[in-house]
Amino acid sequence: MLEKVDLKRKLEKGTFKTLAPDLRERLGELQRRAKDLDIPVGVVFEGWDGAGKGTLMNELILALDPRGFQVHNVGGPTEDGRFWPPMRRFWKLLPPRGRMALYNRSWYRRVLEDPLEEGAFEEILSFERQLAQDGYLIVKFFLHISKKEQKKRLQALEADPATSWRVTDQDWEHHKRYDRTETLVESMLQRTDKGHAPWTLVEAHDREYATVKILTTVIQALEQQIARVEAARALGAAPTPPLVTRSTPDPLKPAILRSLDLDLSVAQKEYKKQLKELQERLRDIQYELYRVRRPLVVAFEGPDAAGKGGCIKRLTQELDPRGYQVVPTSAPNDWERAHHYLWRFWTAFPKAGHVGIFDRSWYGRVLVERVEGFCSEGEWRRAYGEINEMEEQWVRSGALMVKFWLHISQEEQLRRFEEREKTPCKNWKITPEDWRNREKWPRHEEAAEEMLLRTSTPGAPWVVVEANCKEYARLKVLRKVVETAEGGLGKK
Amino acid sequence: MLEKVDLKRKLEKGTFKTLAPDLRERLGELQRRAKDLDIPVGVVFEGWDGAGKGTLMNELILALDPRGFQVHNVGGPTEDGRFWPPMRRFWKLLPPRGRMALYNRSWYRRVLEDPLEEGAFEEILSFERQLAQDGYLIVKFFLHISKKEQKKRLQALEADPATSWRVTDQDWEHHKRYDRTETLVESMLQRTDKGHAPWTLVEAHDREYATVKILTTVIQALEQQIARVEAARALGAAPTPPLVTRSTPDPLKPAILRSLDLDLSVAQKEYKKQLKELQERLRDIQYELYRVRRPLVVAFEGPDAAGKGGCIKRLTQELDPRGYQVVPTSAPNDWERAHHYLWRFWTAFPKAGHVGIFDRSWYGRVLVERVEGFCSEGEWRRAYGEINEMEEQWVRSGALMVKFWLHISQEEQLRRFEEREKTPCKNWKITPEDWRNREKWPRHEEAAEEMLLRTSTPGAPWVVVEANCKEYARLKVLRKVVETAEGGLGKK
Repeated sequence: MLEKVDLKRKLEKGTFKTLAPDLRERLGELQRRAKDLDIPVGVVFEGWDGAGKGTLMNELILALDPRGFQVHNVGGPTEDGRFWPPMRRFWKLLPPRGRMALYNRSWYRRVLEDPLEEGAFEEILSFERQLAQDGYLIVKFFLHISKKEQKKRLQALEADPATSWRVTDQDWEHHKRYDRTETLVESMLQRTDKGHAPWTLVEAHDREYATVKILTTVIQALEQQIARVEAARALGAAPTPPLVTRSTPDPLKPAILRSLDLDLSVAQKEYKKQLKELQERLRDIQYELYRVRRPLVVAFEGPDAAGKGGCIKRLTQELDPRGYQVVPTSAPNDWERAHHYLWRFWTAFPKAGHVGIFDRSWYGRVLVERVEGFCSEGEWRRAYGEINEMEEQWVRSGALMVKFWLHISQEEQLRRFEEREKTPCKNWKITPEDWRNREKWPRHEEAAEEMLLRTSTPGAPWVVVEANCKEYARLKVLRKVVETAEGGLGKK
Repeated sequence: MLEKVDLKRKLEKGTFKTLAPDLRERLGELQRRAKDLDIPVGVVFEGWDGAGKGTLMNELILALDPRGFQVHNVGGPTEDGRFWPPMRRFWKLLPPRGRMALYNRSWYRRVLEDPLEEGAFEEILSFERQLAQDGYLIVKFFLHISKKEQKKRLQALEADPATSWRVTDQDWEHHKRYDRTETLVESMLQRTDKGHAPWTLVEAHDREYATVKILTTVIQALEQQIARVEAARALGAAPTPPLVTRSTPDPLKPAILRSLDLDLSVAQKEYKKQLKELQERLRDIQYELYRVRRPLVVAFEGPDAAGKGGCIKRLTQELDPRGYQVVPTSAPNDWERAHHYLWRFWTAFPKAGHVGIFDRSWYGRVLVERVEGFCSEGEWRRAYGEINEMEEQWVRSGALMVKFWLHISQEEQLRRFEEREKTPCKNWKITPEDWRNREKWPRHEEAAEEMLLRTSTPGAPWVVVEANCKEYARLKVLRKVVETAEGGLGKK
């Protein structure tokens, strides 16, 4: 998840001043409502040294009624701590119903500081699941800064006589191990990002941006939980006035896609040369995969007319047809619908040594099905975890994987749609549905952003491809497939 | 769980002939109803070689509409199987909605035949959870026979020329490894007994008994799932007539408690001698526990007036009061109710080196709260797994544990109640609530039976104590505590 975080996100001071008071007021209101409904809330702050946990917790606290919350500073393991089962200290720090606990560091210290401790993940997952099932709302933040930013912040603290005492040798030790720790963090986020206790990654370089993201996330989580509790009660008791939920403020919306330079391009001559070279390497790779019996899975997603078909054609052009299969995914038919939504993808998984290319994929659940309401909110929220579990199993069994999001601008899509309509031989490619989907562009984009963040994992990463120039996109796709396969085969 | 199974259970042929036709008819009816509601059902048959999986599956099939189910014989790992991620073959065998799959062996082969395979449990749990969340009904049977019975059956098959070919050298190899396999089975059952996919242990010595238990379990599971689906639909659609569920036929009810010889007793002189000896050993043990910093947890449950208090008094009489604590558990107070129901027990867990004695315990959830309706059915069903997870964490962190169910007959309870009422100094011990509880004796017994079966684990076993004779009960309790502690300390 971390590599998909855009640490350059910022919020203008002016925008912050407009947004913040309103958010704080709303949060106070929701805190009171959660109290009336007896909802217990736990908010976890994890993150890098120097990421600003203290400062940002304080920004959240400013909005809260002090009688309704408690802050717990979770220290490292103590001598005394070893006299009890590890999770006991966190059970003791549980908020009672109707109150809120803020954790400055948390039970996740266990897996970050002693990654080999047996059973720790299992115990953490059991803890959060048991609480969620009992009605606890769990919000988890990881405050992310780059290694460079961390260094800058530590140096600034050291330079100031008033704060230099805060920087210890240990902090610098930790800083040196940033890259190794990042791998641990990545695996921790992946294994513990559950529908009932999701992680929110906070881009923490800019304080205003981080503050607004934290406030907004807590507000939305409270809104959802309150709505759930009220709906459940309404079945038995008198209905309460329904809660109006609010959408994410615009400057906070994820912007992986909007910050792409979509017009990256390549000259025809260079394209032809590189294409030929990459296709030849791909053929060698295909035989090597077969020899060592490793399957390769390549998945394509993206807006209509983004050029998925063209990429797949170039990808397979020089391959041995006995060793690959292109699996087109459209709306499930009756027989597919009669099974679990992942069933058809498990069934289509390529045999060891073969290449499986998915033209659209299992991600339909969190993309079109989410946007069109073909499944419930609970279903698509749960799907991130379900999909990660599936891909993890595939990777564990030896599969190499890469997933492409081909992205084009709305204008480019319009141009391609019109061209399709005008060109008789391409006319079949455009349907009224394509025009309808186009109208929901912002919601599709929002779904794509969340998917990229929640399901890009080290074993099955998402690669976002700037695809206004088809040739550029095709080369990038082929190159990434070659790199993925060669990396997995130990050639790079 | 296995050690709590009473393999002597039998059903008279006459009773079987009365019950079976009715059960079969009911099952056919429910199968049709599940089909109409699009409920997919998976029934797993695991069990010992020779336990009669084929025969018993057939008994179930006899009741079913052949167009609505499919049988899958799950073989061992094949050469070809290694070319795919392990769970793919089971995804391929999923029943579509409205249909039923019967598995003769299943995904559990993975953990029984290759117990060291990395990630297998995780993948199985993910598989069943994903299916359950999608509306699949999962029923899992483990057919249990003793080592002796297995030998007898293999010999009988060998002796008959018509069946001798069915017994291979491998079967005898497996038979020799019975005890080792039993440990694997126990751990498999414990780790995968979830509310959404519970195990049913089938006492398989007697074919009639096993048949009726299997039919009844499938019927009850279908009834519950149908009721759930109909309730969910009723929120949106027109209500369907509510389903009348049926209770367990009497000869099938669990009978651990009813088969006890409650009148086991001990003479006064012998009692005094042994008591003194055990109490002295206990004191030594207490110091040893403190020295090596291991906590000891002893929990007591049982009907009112079963003698828990008297046992605890004898247990603690010679102990050093600085090293033990008796934790009485009554109905939760407001502050306790404001937390997760396990919170107060986590909080009361003894420090390493200390002894924690619980007079009633966290099992209240699946006993009195179940019987009195103080929690929902979903809550107490989920609690078995939650409690097992908690105790597993305690044991993993070094705790020694033993749990006692003190049992007395209804007549003995009456005698003691009347005595309490007559004796001024004991009068405070008897309340109107005790009399009310007494009226629900069969339901308390049923809850206790299910608890004993589902939560007796190797690390935290239940010991059932015949307690009509108080002195006998006290000696048994003290002896078991001594044995548990000495076993855990490596002295036995």
